[in-house]
Amino acid sequence: MLDCIVIGSGVAGISAALTLRANGKSFRLFGSPNLSEKIARAERIENYPGLSSVSGAEFVVALKKQLAGAEITVENERINGVFAMGDTVNVALQNGEILTAKTVILACGVESVKQIEGEEKFLGRGVSYCATCDGFLYKDKTIMVVSTSKTFEHEVAYLAGIAKKVWFIPLYKNAEIEAENVEKTVRMPKEIYGEKRVLGVAFEKKGEREEIAVDGVFILKESLPPSALVGGLETAEGHVVVDRQMRTNLKGIFAAGDCTGRPYQYAKATGEGNVAAHYVSAYCAKK
Amino acid sequence: MLDCIVIGSGVAGISAALTLRANGKSFRLFGSPNLSEKIARAERIENYPGLSSVSGAEFVVALKKQLAGAEITVENERINGVFAMGDTVNVALQNGEILTAKTVILACGVESVKQIEGEEKFLGRGVSYCATCDGFLYKDKTIMVVSTSKTFEHEVAYLAGIAKKVWFIPLYKNAEIEAENVEKTVRMPKEIYGEKRVLGVAFEKKGEREEIAVDGVFILKESLPPSALVGGLETAEGHVVVDRQMRTNLKGIFAAGDCTGRPYQYAKATGEGNVAAHYVSAYCAKK
Repeated sequence: MLDCIVIGSGVAGISAALTLRANGKSFRLFGSPNLSEKIARAERIENYPGLSSVSGAEFVVALKKQLAGAEITVENERINGVFAMGDTVNVALQNGEILTAKTVILACGVESVKQIEGEEKFLGRGVSYCATCDGFLYKDKTIMVVSTSKTFEHEVAYLAGIAKKVWFIPLYKNAEIEAENVEKTVRMPKEIYGEKRVLGVAFEKKGEREEIAVDGVFILKESLPPSALVGGLETAEGHVVVDRQMRTNLKGIFAAGDCTGRPYQYAKATGEGNVAAHYVSAYCAKK
Repeated sequence: MLDCIVIGSGVAGISAALTLRANGKSFRLFGSPNLSEKIARAERIENYPGLSSVSGAEFVVALKKQLAGAEITVENERINGVFAMGDTVNVALQNGEILTAKTVILACGVESVKQIEGEEKFLGRGVSYCATCDGFLYKDKTIMVVSTSKTFEHEVAYLAGIAKKVWFIPLYKNAEIEAENVEKTVRMPKEIYGEKRVLGVAFEKKGEREEIAVDGVFILKESLPPSALVGGLETAEGHVVVDRQMRTNLKGIFAAGDCTGRPYQYAKATGEGNVAAHYVSAYCAKK
């Protein structure tokens, strides 16, 4: 069985992976090919000890080189859920596979996109983060898809093949979806409203409220809020609650980096990934 | 008034200083010209994100360059004591000067030298860490001086000028003290014994106990145990107890790096220095 599954390829996840490798632990690292959009877009990093005034892009190059040197691969597979099973942790991949490991390190960052009012309230009752998981529920129905990145366009196309009508809200430039039943609209939703389930999405235009009735809302973003990813996870103000050993309230699940709270700094993420990997190693040794 | 005094020029102290600089805080950084013996002696560092397989010496060069670029000076003055005064913190330097700041970040590392049995018990009752502070107490008396580094030889010479007789135990090679009343012996003390005060130092030789009667023992080492440096500081198993904001039990005193506990890793120290500086900045902003 794997010792650990690391979720997230920002600095915290990479730091954890490097230390797990140094400790001879077996693990898999899930993230994105470019490691982290946040790092890549950083203009200049001045306070990361050891690297004098590097750009984010330079930092990414250095990290990629280091991962290659340590023979660590970043697997670009989306994680749909993490389940604490007692002595093990199960991780559900987007492709349907279920992995089992002794531990998980959550290093999934913080959402760069503010939650929409009603998003958390209606999660699982009309709001979904996963097209391939929940798309089939909306056959011949009307849905709205809010997407933060071009990388999700195949998921939008997938949904367009199921639903009758798709309202598509890209939160990025140069969105390209060609399908007769897709209508693009470039404004930010103000509220997801409903009663027991989602009834629609509201917008504000010059002080006036406008509503679009939909059966469901898909929100496609780089990182899920940890509480949506891991059932029963204790959070406070949107951050995962951890102790000094980076343990969460769930057995075998650790967390590191921005997802555990401010400051959102590379140095902090580096430290927390290292500490999480250290205590994961100790935890696995005990078993 | 200074916002912060950072004690220690290892990775934790440097990380704190870089972030205090980035946050526009006023501070002074105390440490050693070569930053950290521990780093300098590290053969190879494999798990510090951003630096692929560097030697400790290369890491020191990178850190020095970065400090110079940020116009941060490491002041090579020994700290004799840190005193939480309520709304401010006083720091006593070896040269007699007393500095006042809103906060202190302890980044003094862990002792590389194991404590001698009786060292803590007789601290202030015959055991001293500071030649210039306590030397005058031993005029015409017999003392033992245990020294971990050549850099303390001027302190040994100073003590030889006061005491009647000095037993000198260098824990390093090529010790050079030339004085008639100094007798060098190269063995490790087993115990500092006494009753109300120190009476002597015991050694073990082929299973036999040997004792040398002395009036006082000076132990000269790079870093003092934090509990000896800061009165009233809460520690557990020799480590400073901190919360997730790197606050100690004393108002305005924060800690970061090896002194807060394992893992003794550069990545952890980097993270903790960053977090301490972040919450120091927040603390100063509130006042």
